[in-house]
Amino acid sequence: MRIDIISVVPELLESPLSHSIVGRAIKKGIVEIHVHNPRKYGKGPHQQVDDYSYGGDAGMVMMCEPLYKMITELTEQRHYDEIIYMSPDGETLSQGIANELSLMENIILLCGHYKGIDQRIREHMVTREISVGDYVLSGGEIPAAIVADAVVRLIPGAITDETSALSDCFQDGMLSAPIYTRPAEFNGWKVPEVLLCGNPKLIQKWQDEQIIERTKTLRPDLLKD
Amino acid sequence: MRIDIISVVPELLESPLSHSIVGRAIKKGIVEIHVHNPRKYGKGPHQQVDDYSYGGDAGMVMMCEPLYKMITELTEQRHYDEIIYMSPDGETLSQGIANELSLMENIILLCGHYKGIDQRIREHMVTREISVGDYVLSGGEIPAAIVADAVVRLIPGAITDETSALSDCFQDGMLSAPIYTRPAEFNGWKVPEVLLCGNPKLIQKWQDEQIIERTKTLRPDLLKD
Repeated sequence: MRIDIISVVPELLESPLSHSIVGRAIKKGIVEIHVHNPRKYGKGPHQQVDDYSYGGDAGMVMMCEPLYKMITELTEQRHYDEIIYMSPDGETLSQGIANELSLMENIILLCGHYKGIDQRIREHMVTREISVGDYVLSGGEIPAAIVADAVVRLIPGAITDETSALSDCFQDGMLSAPIYTRPAEFNGWKVPEVLLCGNPKLIQKWQDEQIIERTKTLRPDLLKD
Repeated sequence: MRIDIISVVPELLESPLSHSIVGRAIKKGIVEIHVHNPRKYGKGPHQQVDDYSYGGDAGMVMMCEPLYKMITELTEQRHYDEIIYMSPDGETLSQGIANELSLMENIILLCGHYKGIDQRIREHMVTREISVGDYVLSGGEIPAAIVADAVVRLIPGAITDETSALSDCFQDGMLSAPIYTRPAEFNGWKVPEVLLCGNPKLIQKWQDEQIIERTKTLRPDLLKD
């Protein structure tokens, strides 16, 4: 899989793409991630990429031309399954969408910064808009890092023990059971006895009950569909 | 405001905390953000912080002791309004929660990594659990960067033009109107004529209509409450 990220603040993405599972997956050749700065297509001697908003609202808007040229440079080289704009008004990222994206060959993640990008790029070039949640951030860079992490860890080989991803929260639309490790008692706080009993059937039964109980209590909305 | 982030992969946070609005707010002294690695309290010569899960599930679990000591080191120095564990089964981050956190003095953001942290720390030390969305990531570091960004930009002085934050998506529970900048025509794509008319009342009316129309079409769920 190949992910191209377009950003005017590419330095924000350096550490999220260099370490942990995403960094290792890049080093192993499981995924290619390239970051591109549309400023090279910026206007004038200062390579300007933003301008005041029509209508006089506060905040700067990213101009059409640098983004148009940047996206075109990429789409002339290969076919992209999706050109995704990271935006708070896009469809909300879910584990299902992460699963779907992880099966694609090439995707572009376009990051807005400042107040956002000119609407015409959204209408004419972007094929999909994704939001990581109902809150406002300074730009689409950290959200792009979220998408990269959520997607890359699903590609076979990215994490060493694949059953670890399968038992994650949300993979079956439920929360996961509480987890514990040694020692069995710390600071007077004890691990539930059933986990120490050595009987896999009893442990599985307890975990299944916990999954249902926790989901019912904490996220009843997940059980509605 | 002061934010303490606890992470065993602190290098993941370097670039999100060094650039853009969060980086500038730290430099201006508007917010203090400190990252702490509990590995210094790790076990044995390798400063181990994780161990196998009781019950035999795949994936490693972060042990109680290093986290207990790390949190205690901080709470002995000052009072924290919240000790927040970044977890996919926490309450979902919203603009309202970001507003609320931005009014606090000291918060801890505790990042899980690997399979997560021992449940006993969640039960006995954590005061609140926050999720950035219904998807699984490799750790709580990028989510902590999300919280830091969403919160810091709301602190007065963090962004130059404060009305820019006020006109953001979700601040009034609605999506925002489409935005455009110069030129009025690019590649045959035109800016809506009303934005060029110079009449602030007509422009406001159009923007209000767009806000309602876009929210109705794209996110009818926001209008339900």
